[in-house]
Amino acid sequence: MNPDVAFPIWSGERAQRVAAVLDGCLPPADEPPETLHQAMRYSVLSGGKRVRALLAYAAGEFAGGDPSVVDAAAAAVELIHAYSLIHDDLPCMDDDVLRRGRPACHVAYGEAMALLAGDALQALAFEELAKAHVPGGISLLARSAGSRGMAGGQAFDLASTGAVLAVDELERMHRLKTGALIGAAVRLGAACGPPLNAAQERALDRCASAVGLAFQVVDDVLDVEGTAQSLGKTAGKDAAQQKPTYVSVMGLAAARELILKLRVEAHSALADSGRGARRLGEIVDWLTARSN
Amino acid sequence: MNPDVAFPIWSGERAQRVAAVLDGCLPPADEPPETLHQAMRYSVLSGGKRVRALLAYAAGEFAGGDPSVVDAAAAAVELIHAYSLIHDDLPCMDDDVLRRGRPACHVAYGEAMALLAGDALQALAFEELAKAHVPGGISLLARSAGSRGMAGGQAFDLASTGAVLAVDELERMHRLKTGALIGAAVRLGAACGPPLNAAQERALDRCASAVGLAFQVVDDVLDVEGTAQSLGKTAGKDAAQQKPTYVSVMGLAAARELILKLRVEAHSALADSGRGARRLGEIVDWLTARSN
Repeated sequence: MNPDVAFPIWSGERAQRVAAVLDGCLPPADEPPETLHQAMRYSVLSGGKRVRALLAYAAGEFAGGDPSVVDAAAAAVELIHAYSLIHDDLPCMDDDVLRRGRPACHVAYGEAMALLAGDALQALAFEELAKAHVPGGISLLARSAGSRGMAGGQAFDLASTGAVLAVDELERMHRLKTGALIGAAVRLGAACGPPLNAAQERALDRCASAVGLAFQVVDDVLDVEGTAQSLGKTAGKDAAQQKPTYVSVMGLAAARELILKLRVEAHSALADSGRGARRLGEIVDWLTARSN
Repeated sequence: MNPDVAFPIWSGERAQRVAAVLDGCLPPADEPPETLHQAMRYSVLSGGKRVRALLAYAAGEFAGGDPSVVDAAAAAVELIHAYSLIHDDLPCMDDDVLRRGRPACHVAYGEAMALLAGDALQALAFEELAKAHVPGGISLLARSAGSRGMAGGQAFDLASTGAVLAVDELERMHRLKTGALIGAAVRLGAACGPPLNAAQERALDRCASAVGLAFQVVDDVLDVEGTAQSLGKTAGKDAAQQKPTYVSVMGLAAARELILKLRVEAHSALADSGRGARRLGEIVDWLTARSN
């Protein structure tokens, strides 16, 4: 791959690359138990923006990691993300029927199979990452997915439905719910290369933290402004479910301003890293300007 | 600990030991999100026979593993087992309300929290195992939990409700559903020591395979013969749910005979290992004679 291509080419190539890695590590659709494997493939290979994989690839390039090692890190974070979407959409959670423009996994395959598909995808994420021997990688991914990461954020989210949250409570929830895995994608990608120095580590962490939060604020704004067609998922669902969001807590204008602030913070962190971080910078711009 | 104590003392000490390890690796009940952490602790620290932990400890002793390393392996398999019970009991799966003599997790904490507690426990299992750096351990645990292991067995189980299965189909289902994690407990425990030779590996695998299957056949017999009080879970539920079992497929007498055959096979494998395997042999006897 040409390293100097424009961002849409770079990201398109990486998205295709991780899709191929995912296709290869998922059991074939005709391997028994067929329905489980079909449900897993349905949810993982249905597209999506592959934000987490792109962050892992960009951080891997930043750190000088071997692309074939970064492949495993990128696939692992996408598998965790796919499992979390399946479980989030279940009737006992968000009860959503639409995902990536198609019926949610539990609509297509039934609740029990969706539950198992999510469970099996989480295991597969660790199996895939273990192949690559990324130093500290398993601990990093496990913490970001567990009760002190994504699953913990979901629990805060459940408890917050119908509640009035202060901005800092909302931030804590989102830093776990979305930010933890986004941060893990960046750190895992970077861990695929030779060790970074302390300043570079700090810069990357600051960037990951700002991007992770910005991603969620953008989501909240899009949930108000978007349509199901542009989003590929149900729009306006936060308000319908009385979930506190950045828009409901601080208003649309302030939420938009916060996105800009986080974008500047992410770029400033990258500038402080003392190392070329072109692709990470481009992802920051893309994510803060996205419309779906 | 005195290495020569009788089996009930040895197993009681090891069960206490893994409970302490689990208590230490689970987040405290007062750490936010409190309900999630309480649900996780409720399900993991509610006792149970700790069969998988005991197998890991026994295999660890067989292989000469460092007990503090085996601790992590034992805790990890118990965490996977605990998560699987929570998800199995959910309304969309077996819809059971009683577990280890207490309300199932989803009854005590609600479906959504039970789903998240299971998800977070799976992540914690890998986090805990990663601490111990057991060679090949993460891959082994991940495969045994995933779609080619336990989750796959559950999917076969779902598909088999109301169906007529041949004995070999039933065996395939149970080898995955119960046998995969039992086998992983043995192999993980052994992997905590210096590498075994090929004959020892083979002997251990044969033993694990026989024990794993025997455990399930005993479960099927107890489901017919036991009471909720002796089992700590709903009795007679396989028949009520029209699930094929060893008893329904081959009859009670033949199922009892199969247990004895598997017991002999497990002992014969251990005898072929050319190495002292006292605790593994005692576990084989205990599991094939158990009444709950």
